[in-house]
Amino acid sequence: MAVNHHAARPHPATGAWMSGHPVGSRKFLEFAGDRPFALDGGITMHGVTVAYETWGRLDADGGNAVLLCHAWTGDSHASGPAGVGHPAPGWWEGVVGPGLAIDTDRWFVVCANVLGGCQGSTGPASPHPADGLPYGSRFPVVTIRDMVRAQARLADHLGVARWHSVVGGSMGGMQVLEWAIMFPHRVGSIVPIATCAQATAQQIAWGAIGRRAVRLDPKWQGGDYYLAADGDGPWEGLSIARMIAQVTFRIDNVFTDRFGRELADGATLREGLDLWQRFEVERYLEYHGDKLVRRFDANSYLAIGKAMDLHDVGRGRAGLATATARIKAPTLVMGISSDILYPTYQQRQIQQLIDDGGGAAEYLEIDSPHGHDAFLINLDQVAPPLQRFLERVAKP
Amino acid sequence: MAVNHHAARPHPATGAWMSGHPVGSRKFLEFAGDRPFALDGGITMHGVTVAYETWGRLDADGGNAVLLCHAWTGDSHASGPAGVGHPAPGWWEGVVGPGLAIDTDRWFVVCANVLGGCQGSTGPASPHPADGLPYGSRFPVVTIRDMVRAQARLADHLGVARWHSVVGGSMGGMQVLEWAIMFPHRVGSIVPIATCAQATAQQIAWGAIGRRAVRLDPKWQGGDYYLAADGDGPWEGLSIARMIAQVTFRIDNVFTDRFGRELADGATLREGLDLWQRFEVERYLEYHGDKLVRRFDANSYLAIGKAMDLHDVGRGRAGLATATARIKAPTLVMGISSDILYPTYQQRQIQQLIDDGGGAAEYLEIDSPHGHDAFLINLDQVAPPLQRFLERVAKP
Repeated sequence: MAVNHHAARPHPATGAWMSGHPVGSRKFLEFAGDRPFALDGGITMHGVTVAYETWGRLDADGGNAVLLCHAWTGDSHASGPAGVGHPAPGWWEGVVGPGLAIDTDRWFVVCANVLGGCQGSTGPASPHPADGLPYGSRFPVVTIRDMVRAQARLADHLGVARWHSVVGGSMGGMQVLEWAIMFPHRVGSIVPIATCAQATAQQIAWGAIGRRAVRLDPKWQGGDYYLAADGDGPWEGLSIARMIAQVTFRIDNVFTDRFGRELADGATLREGLDLWQRFEVERYLEYHGDKLVRRFDANSYLAIGKAMDLHDVGRGRAGLATATARIKAPTLVMGISSDILYPTYQQRQIQQLIDDGGGAAEYLEIDSPHGHDAFLINLDQVAPPLQRFLERVAKP
Repeated sequence: MAVNHHAARPHPATGAWMSGHPVGSRKFLEFAGDRPFALDGGITMHGVTVAYETWGRLDADGGNAVLLCHAWTGDSHASGPAGVGHPAPGWWEGVVGPGLAIDTDRWFVVCANVLGGCQGSTGPASPHPADGLPYGSRFPVVTIRDMVRAQARLADHLGVARWHSVVGGSMGGMQVLEWAIMFPHRVGSIVPIATCAQATAQQIAWGAIGRRAVRLDPKWQGGDYYLAADGDGPWEGLSIARMIAQVTFRIDNVFTDRFGRELADGATLREGLDLWQRFEVERYLEYHGDKLVRRFDANSYLAIGKAMDLHDVGRGRAGLATATARIKAPTLVMGISSDILYPTYQQRQIQQLIDDGGGAAEYLEIDSPHGHDAFLINLDQVAPPLQRFLERVAKP
C-alpha cells in the first residue's frame, strides 16, 4: 500500500470547474492497484485514494484512536484553522483539539474524506485509472458501507486495530452505525448523532428532489461537465439542491425570527413588485447555495446523497433488529429536539434497537432551536457529555 | 361589462404547450377595456377575464351567495364530475352540492379561477391585448388582493352585494382574509382554512426554491416558451417545483407508512445500484409532478406562488393587528394538526388577532395525519362544522 503525500500528483478535484482548493495539510492514502476495492453495488474500483487528517499521537498499544465521520458536505478537516486547502476552520472546531472534549492530547483523532467526496478522496471528479480523465458519469454508486470499508483500510494503514470510539453526526452517524455492525471487534464505542438506522421516505424525497435539480441544469451535461471548454458546471442546480437541504436543516420559527418578511438589500415593496425580487430568506439561501458551489463538486453531492438514501443498516441482514443486535459497543445516541430532517424518534429507535438486541445504549437530547445542524452549533450541549462518555468507556 | 361565454374566442391556456383542456361548463367574465384593472404593483391591465362556475340560484334578496376561493393549483371547478375541460372531479366534491355541507339547494355558490391562473382567468398564457401573443414574461406580478379585486368585480356582475360567506383553504384562505379586510361590508362571514395572516420565511423559502427550479429549466426560456416551435415547455422544472410542494403537503410518518423504502417498479437492490434508480416515494412524487405538468401552466405556478409569498394582510395597513381589527364578520378558522407547511399556530394566530380586534372568531382543529391537504381529504371533519357554521351565521 503506497502512501501518497499528494505533493507529486495533481489533486483530483482541482481545475477550472472548482475554485483552486485542497492540497493543504491533508494526507492521502492510496490503495495500490494490487488491492482492488469491491463496492456494495458489485463494481470493483482500482487506485482508490482516501484523504485524511490526524491529530494527536497513537499510543504504543494503539488503544487511543478516535475516528470522526463527517456529514454530507463535510471533509477531513474536523479541526484547525482555515488555511491552504481549508477555506474554513474545522467543522468541529471547539470539540476537537488540545484540552477539548475530544482531547487531542489524549486521543489520536482521525477524520477521512468519504469515498465519493471531492476533498481529496476518490470521487466523481477524480481521474479514472483507465484514461486519467475524470470519472464523471462513470463514477459508480457507493454506499455508506463502502465509505466505511475505505476507512477500515485507512485504519489498517494507520495501525489502528480497534477504535476507542467512532463518532459522527448526520451521514457521519450512518457510518458510525455501520462501523459497529460491520466491524464489531474493531469498535470500542460509538456516538451516532442526529442520524438514523435507515433513511425514511421523506429523507429520500428531499435528497432525490435535490438531485433532480442538478440533473436539470444543462451544464451538468449528464455528469461530464469537468472538461467543459468554458470551465462551467451545474452551479445553479447544485445551489437549488443545497437550498432545499438548508431549509430542512433549520426550522420554521428560527427562520421567522431571523428573516421575517424582510426584503433583501433593504428594498421595499413600495418600489413596485418583481417576480424575482428576493426576500431576505431567499438571499440567505442563495448565499448558502453559492457558498457550497464554490467548495463542493456537484457530482459528489449526487453520489453522497444517493448513498444516504440507500442507507439501511438492515439491508441484506434480515432487517433492522438482526443488524443492530450486533452492536455491543457502548453507545451514546444524541438527538436534537428541533430536528425536522432526522426527527428524534429515529435516534430513540436506534437506542431501543440496540438495547433490545442486548447492547447498551443511552440517549441524550440536545435542546436546541437550530434544527439538524445543532450538533455543529450547540457545542456546549454536545461536548461535555461526549467528553464524559469517551472517558467513561475508557475505563476497564 | 361584456360577458363572454367563451365559445367565440380561443381559450388563453390552450395550445401545444398544454394538453388541450378547459372550455367546459365554465363561464367567463371579461372586464371591458373601459374598465381597466389596476394592480397592487402599480400596473394597470386591460381586457382581464375571470373564469368562474356557479351552483344553485341566487335568492331574490341576494343574501344566499357563498364564495369559494381555490388553492394554488386549483381552479373554478369546486364541484361536479370530470368532463370536457375538467379532467378531474371538483376539488371539493363531497362538500359542495345538493344536500351537502355547502348545500347548493340552499346557497348560490360561486368559484372563480384566480387572476394569474391558467384555467380560464387571465394569466401569463393569456393573450396580451397589445399583440394577442401570450403575456409570458410580460405578465405582471399579482397579489392576493388583486385576485380578490377581480372576484369583487365578478360579484358586481353577478349581483352579489354581500357574500353570506367566503370560504377557502390554503391560498384560498388568504383570499378569504383579504375579502374580510378589503370589503368588510360585503362579507357576512368567513371560513379561512389551513392558511396564514402572512407568509413566513419558511413558506417563502419553499416557494422561492420551486420557482428557481422552473427558471433553471432551459425550456422556460425566460418565461416565453409558449411559442416554442416544438411546443415544448419547462415541464421538468415545474415537476421539481411540484415535488417540493408535495413533500411539504404531507408528513414524514405518512410517507413512511405508505412508501417505506420500497423501490419503484418492483425492483430490488440486489440487481445492482444506479444513481437514478427510483424509490417508490420518488415514483409517487414524479407522478404528481407529471400530473400537474399536464394540467397547469408553469408561469401561472410562478405567478401564484409569488402572490402567496407576498401575502401579508398587514402590508400597508400598519401591521397585522390593525388590519385584522377590520374583521368583524363571524369567523370559523380551521387548522390541521399535522400541517407542516401552515402549522396550526398560524391559524390560532388568526383567531387571536380577530378576537383581540373585537371580532368573533372560533378555531377548530382537524385531527388528521394527512398534512396540509387534509382539508381536501378529511371531509368528514371539515364538512359538518362548516355546514353548522353557515346555518348559524344565517340566523338574524
